[in-house]
Amino acid sequence: MPDVIFPLDSARKFEDQEKIGHNRWHPEIPPVATVKPGDSFRVHCREWFDGAIVNDDSAEDILNAPLLTVHKLSGPFAVEGVKPGDLLVVDILDVGPIPQEDAGPLAGQGWGYTGIFSRNNGGGFLTDQFPDAYKAIWDFSGQVATSRHVPEVSYVGLIHPGLMGTAPSAELLGRWNRREGDLIATDPHRVPPLALPPEAGHALLGSLPASEFDRVAGEAARTAPPRENGGNQDIKNLSKGSRIFYPVFVDGANLSLGDLHFSQGDGEITFCGAIEMGGFIDLRVDVIRGGMDTYGVSENAIFMPGIIEPRYSEWIAFSGTSVTLDGTQHYLDSHLSYQRACLHAIDYLTKFGYSPEQAYLLLGSAPIEGRLSGVVDIPNSCSTVYIPTAIFDFDVRPSAAGPYRIDPGMGAPRSRNA
Amino acid sequence: MPDVIFPLDSARKFEDQEKIGHNRWHPEIPPVATVKPGDSFRVHCREWFDGAIVNDDSAEDILNAPLLTVHKLSGPFAVEGVKPGDLLVVDILDVGPIPQEDAGPLAGQGWGYTGIFSRNNGGGFLTDQFPDAYKAIWDFSGQVATSRHVPEVSYVGLIHPGLMGTAPSAELLGRWNRREGDLIATDPHRVPPLALPPEAGHALLGSLPASEFDRVAGEAARTAPPRENGGNQDIKNLSKGSRIFYPVFVDGANLSLGDLHFSQGDGEITFCGAIEMGGFIDLRVDVIRGGMDTYGVSENAIFMPGIIEPRYSEWIAFSGTSVTLDGTQHYLDSHLSYQRACLHAIDYLTKFGYSPEQAYLLLGSAPIEGRLSGVVDIPNSCSTVYIPTAIFDFDVRPSAAGPYRIDPGMGAPRSRNA
Amino acid sequence: MPDVIFPLDSARKFEDQEKIGHNRWHPEIPPVATVKPGDSFRVHCREWFDGAIVNDDSAEDILNAPLLTVHKLSGPFAVEGVKPGDLLVVDILDVGPIPQEDAGPLAGQGWGYTGIFSRNNGGGFLTDQFPDAYKAIWDFSGQVATSRHVPEVSYVGLIHPGLMGTAPSAELLGRWNRREGDLIATDPHRVPPLALPPEAGHALLGSLPASEFDRVAGEAARTAPPRENGGNQDIKNLSKGSRIFYPVFVDGANLSLGDLHFSQGDGEITFCGAIEMGGFIDLRVDVIRGGMDTYGVSENAIFMPGIIEPRYSEWIAFSGTSVTLDGTQHYLDSHLSYQRACLHAIDYLTKFGYSPEQAYLLLGSAPIEGRLSGVVDIPNSCSTVYIPTAIFDFDVRPSAAGPYRIDPGMGAPRSRNA
Amino acid sequence: MPDVIFPLDSARKFEDQEKIGHNRWHPEIPPVATVKPGDSFRVHCREWFDGAIVNDDSAEDILNAPLLTVHKLSGPFAVEGVKPGDLLVVDILDVGPIPQEDAGPLAGQGWGYTGIFSRNNGGGFLTDQFPDAYKAIWDFSGQVATSRHVPEVSYVGLIHPGLMGTAPSAELLGRWNRREGDLIATDPHRVPPLALPPEAGHALLGSLPASEFDRVAGEAARTAPPRENGGNQDIKNLSKGSRIFYPVFVDGANLSLGDLHFSQGDGEITFCGAIEMGGFIDLRVDVIRGGMDTYGVSENAIFMPGIIEPRYSEWIAFSGTSVTLDGTQHYLDSHLSYQRACLHAIDYLTKFGYSPEQAYLLLGSAPIEGRLSGVVDIPNSCSTVYIPTAIFDFDVRPSAAGPYRIDPGMGAPRSRNA
Repeated sequence: MPDVIFPLDSARKFEDQEKIGHNRWHPEIPPVATVKPGDSFRVHCREWFDGAIVNDDSAEDILNAPLLTVHKLSGPFAVEGVKPGDLLVVDILDVGPIPQEDAGPLAGQGWGYTGIFSRNNGGGFLTDQFPDAYKAIWDFSGQVATSRHVPEVSYVGLIHPGLMGTAPSAELLGRWNRREGDLIATDPHRVPPLALPPEAGHALLGSLPASEFDRVAGEAARTAPPRENGGNQDIKNLSKGSRIFYPVFVDGANLSLGDLHFSQGDGEITFCGAIEMGGFIDLRVDVIRGGMDTYGVSENAIFMPGIIEPRYSEWIAFSGTSVTLDGTQHYLDSHLSYQRACLHAIDYLTKFGYSPEQAYLLLGSAPIEGRLSGVVDIPNSCSTVYIPTAIFDFDVRPSAAGPYRIDPGMGAPRSRNA
Repeated sequence: MPDVIFPLDSARKFEDQEKIGHNRWHPEIPPVATVKPGDSFRVHCREWFDGAIVNDDSAEDILNAPLLTVHKLSGPFAVEGVKPGDLLVVDILDVGPIPQEDAGPLAGQGWGYTGIFSRNNGGGFLTDQFPDAYKAIWDFSGQVATSRHVPEVSYVGLIHPGLMGTAPSAELLGRWNRREGDLIATDPHRVPPLALPPEAGHALLGSLPASEFDRVAGEAARTAPPRENGGNQDIKNLSKGSRIFYPVFVDGANLSLGDLHFSQGDGEITFCGAIEMGGFIDLRVDVIRGGMDTYGVSENAIFMPGIIEPRYSEWIAFSGTSVTLDGTQHYLDSHLSYQRACLHAIDYLTKFGYSPEQAYLLLGSAPIEGRLSGVVDIPNSCSTVYIPTAIFDFDVRPSAAGPYRIDPGMGAPRSRNA
Repeated sequence: MPDVIFPLDSARKFEDQEKIGHNRWHPEIPPVATVKPGDSFRVHCREWFDGAIVNDDSAEDILNAPLLTVHKLSGPFAVEGVKPGDLLVVDILDVGPIPQEDAGPLAGQGWGYTGIFSRNNGGGFLTDQFPDAYKAIWDFSGQVATSRHVPEVSYVGLIHPGLMGTAPSAELLGRWNRREGDLIATDPHRVPPLALPPEAGHALLGSLPASEFDRVAGEAARTAPPRENGGNQDIKNLSKGSRIFYPVFVDGANLSLGDLHFSQGDGEITFCGAIEMGGFIDLRVDVIRGGMDTYGVSENAIFMPGIIEPRYSEWIAFSGTSVTLDGTQHYLDSHLSYQRACLHAIDYLTKFGYSPEQAYLLLGSAPIEGRLSGVVDIPNSCSTVYIPTAIFDFDVRPSAAGPYRIDPGMGAPRSRNA
Repeated sequence: MPDVIFPLDSARKFEDQEKIGHNRWHPEIPPVATVKPGDSFRVHCREWFDGAIVNDDSAEDILNAPLLTVHKLSGPFAVEGVKPGDLLVVDILDVGPIPQEDAGPLAGQGWGYTGIFSRNNGGGFLTDQFPDAYKAIWDFSGQVATSRHVPEVSYVGLIHPGLMGTAPSAELLGRWNRREGDLIATDPHRVPPLALPPEAGHALLGSLPASEFDRVAGEAARTAPPRENGGNQDIKNLSKGSRIFYPVFVDGANLSLGDLHFSQGDGEITFCGAIEMGGFIDLRVDVIRGGMDTYGVSENAIFMPGIIEPRYSEWIAFSGTSVTLDGTQHYLDSHLSYQRACLHAIDYLTKFGYSPEQAYLLLGSAPIEGRLSGVVDIPNSCSTVYIPTAIFDFDVRPSAAGPYRIDPGMGAPRSRNA
């Protein structure tokens, strides 16, 4: 096991640890540790809400999830000698839930959660159809997750960090704030909002001197969106054995990461869609000097997934086109066509006895694949969603005999006042 | 080999065959043959332009591609006793290029093509960056395709029909025409257009009586977009061994199909993106009575891919977010983020010596996977594109040694006046 | 489709064709055609008994199978300029049943067969347990085979030539005859025999001049065993897309091949174990000059399997050790431990309602994997056999609920007087 | 993390732990713990020589490896209510090296080893060709192992217990001793021996009362061979996610296990062939009452491998037949044909610059597949060995350009007086 360069004590809040992480992007957040190219090291990660979501049969915590406080990021980690223009090579050697702790109040201690956020507090991919808050708790048994809230299904973990990235330069951060501000300005009171501007009240900026705090907190970018530096890409295939190449914008690269997921489908469609948890990650870093220019990577990570993803050979797939539920034709809108494909999958699963919310939680957390199948056949794009049949305890394929009926159990908890 | 119920003679035009196909969707196009549930049969398919694109080193034919004449569809095939509300089960038993003919003027006779359409004649996914017409010819050697226009790469075929679907009912056809007409009306002179209205001049309607021709041709839907009936879904994984479940809207289901591809990437991004060809397909049909309601499939096919797709274990992947090239932030636009991911892949491949057009043609035709990786992290969606490294004759991975340089050869032919 | 350099007319016997093949190995059998390095070509193949086994519900034909007449080999094909010491590179571009003929009296015309040979006429891997003759007929539907004699199971084809090899030199042939003669001499009257000596009565030697026939027929090696030249290796993974490297022992290499199989398990355990058929194969040949020394390949082919084998993700596996059924301990005998593993699989399958013979026929023809799991732990070797669960129409996994019971149907036909 | 029911302290010898394991099979060895059907639990495992093999560049320790002391087994674990005739269901939830300890004197503390045993002390699969002792040390970095002794190759771990099994009944143990004794009696002074009789001097029998020790030690079976109870099967695919079904011979089943491997090829051909290590394993047990009869499993485990094995798509394969190196023909000897296939692979790899011993160590430890390809074509069986090409840092495929040459480095250490 490599040395732990960012330890977390499960008994303490994220702000009360030996080393303090951050929840905003800014070039001036000081590194918590410095490593060398070629070094391997372990980092602990806290789940994104730092314990606000609990292992029970209520969804009140999801309804009131403290979105201003996320994400709890471990880092930044500086890599000696790395310069802007380089590519930072990051190998994910290993990643998993909190070791040696299989019970406790923190997600990652033997369990995790998936949430459907309320439209008024975050929303999600299908928020028009699912405006209320719901939750599912998942129990881990070795490599497998099952849920009392979504019965008769189990997933082999495809554990990955939802969020990893390098620090932006001041110039890049400025661009982010300008373009996102411009977007917000087009509809400033929308619910959910179009984007998330800097917010100083809940900013956590590591060991930044107090004298700089207010200025930096007022500029620092929120961590929800993926951007040029990588960030919250939520790519389910960044699992064990993956190699990622990040563009470098500041001296030392200043890598940060967090938001571990036990499993997730392409799109993380319920927003809090993966099986969220804390845990550990073992990384090795290296550098390709001048690699941004050499390989034409001016922005956005490139990567090679690992070769030990769960192996599935049979899938049932659903397609959708860019026509709204009320019959309006949109022009090559792949976001819409993926929504329609997912809604078709939900319609299908409800015929087996799942509630629509259970089916939606399943699609967010299972290792589904979302594909951009057709993007040029005007006016309809075609997106498809593939579900591995082996995750179900029963035969989920269509047949003349009709669908098996599950016992839906207690169902997915819903918040009272959602 | 099952009986051929729709034969084509390679020496004659599509309109001069023993049985006449069609190039528009309409419930009144008469079936060319009737089969029973459980039957297996073979169908010949003509490439979508019926020979207009030739095996040479010019792209004039792509520039002038006769888009009003597509797609050349085989069918309709009625299935005895099948009723609206049923699910039509279609098994793809086998599919391939034109058997016993490995040379000749028709795509499918041992070769196929990929085109980049001109912005003024169809356009494509990246038409803003690639406004001119280009072409690549691919030679088939057994299961493998290579191109003199895109060197040092080869693909194992993932042969599939780009287009298959059931006939729409009159009511459904009416909905299509209304909603697409409404969209066109928002910007009627756009180039490329927002959608394609009915067009009678080049309509081919099988054996429809002449007395009905003008009325039906004026109503019949164009075949470019995928819709509720399946249609031009361009799903690369509908290959050998796939089972598809189509909703049925008219008595007999009236299945039609065509637009075979030797290989294609998710999205078919150059529009004429796959390796286009004619050939044969062997199908078996069956029915799930009342299956649309039983399984909640009111529209859009569901399917199970076959298990003999080419097996790749290593991929290099590129990500993109919904920010335009000029820096404007869009809201969760997965179409845009997939464009940006594809552009990043093109930037990368050009560092190995490919021209941008060669890289674009490669992405359209290779078995790349396009994924909707993040669709909820406002304001940025994150799309990713995965390229199997084994299709390259060289090591395409990033390294400290820098990229290998291919010999680009003659390059991809470009039309003179494009 | 490449040019057919060895055509077969299904209406005529193998000896009455335009070009005459052979059924023995000898350096003096004249090539039927000469190709160049880099050439692609098509070869027709006749099933190994040339029509003696018919599509019916009897096993008399298996009981009386004319073993002295096999194998019906297409070739030899000389490759211009290739010399002893070279490696002959053979790409399998495509391979399949007889095209355009899906019904008829020849295996390969839409059907194939698997046989259990009688102990008195060939025997098989488990001949002590299965001394009588049985047969199963398989029907092909596209890529899939099913049998009225082995119900509730279907296989996606893993089509391959059971036999392919280069001609031996006179010196090598002499070694074969000496060492096999020595073995036979240790127990000359054994049933089944220890090896098969030259047999002139049924020898077929292509276009060899009559003046040479008796001498050559008296020396020529039988084709049943695999040897240094490749030969009857029965490697199920030599399917589409495979590349094989054969040692070259004579000028031109003189490649011959035949014995096509639609599907087969590792070991081809019933002897006539695969799904036997005739058909076609498309090859491309090339050469690595001096490759035998360069790569240390003095004998026995090396190969790289193709990447479009059927994809299975779930397997049920059985293990065996080198102890006989009557409890005698053998020393690290992997042949015995694989027999015991196969017998364990048969015991298991009979609990689902298969007869032992049906289970044995299934193991010979399904894409099972046979592994040498432990070969050093004295005195027991450990072999394992893996069966893909997806080939069964039912759930074949062990569970507390107990096994599903198939309807065994008519069973596998058995010869009357076996 | 499940409760640890068999803890090991890395600072103490296996005999000096809180709970004492065993190194012989006997029904009277008392359980160290009792669990219930459905329980999950963690077990620590010591590497099989308990620290005798060290992380250095000498092979003296391999030469003198204390074979009488193996294997160090954790257990027995009794499962409440389980009876003879039941099937014990064992799920491998997780398995790995010693957690939290990545450096230290014990294999499993961040490193492991592979050995070639001397002919005079154990031998191995190719002991006639490799009579001397050699060693390779492997360093673990996350999921990947590399070696200073076998350069330019790396493996993704396929971690598994080499040995797991249930306790034999007195009757079964008696059968083992009789049949193995009978075999030894046929050549009692053979080196290496034909089998390993009971040996009391180094027996470790858990908490067995001293009064019983001599009797039991004199009867108890050695653990090297796999037998009816499972045991040292060395099946590389019994990794994370596997489910194994063991026959039960005594009340409580009395499951024991050990001999963890980080990686191994089919056959574990160097005897000490895998990458040997200590570590942990998380198991869940369940029962199928009366399952031995219900499923026809009278002996030898059946199992279903997990779905997260490393994914390789390209292999280079070598074949061998049952002819000895000096040209003697053996009758259908799959052990011999696998030896010949392995020797061919070694010949090939030496052309790239590996010493024969490095190549042999590589084949023992890499995830190679050994297949029984042909077992019926008298007189030659055909075995094949498949090596994934992706484990090499260079292109290992044959080509006209000839082989790449590695830098063999210091080579594999050899014992002085071997």
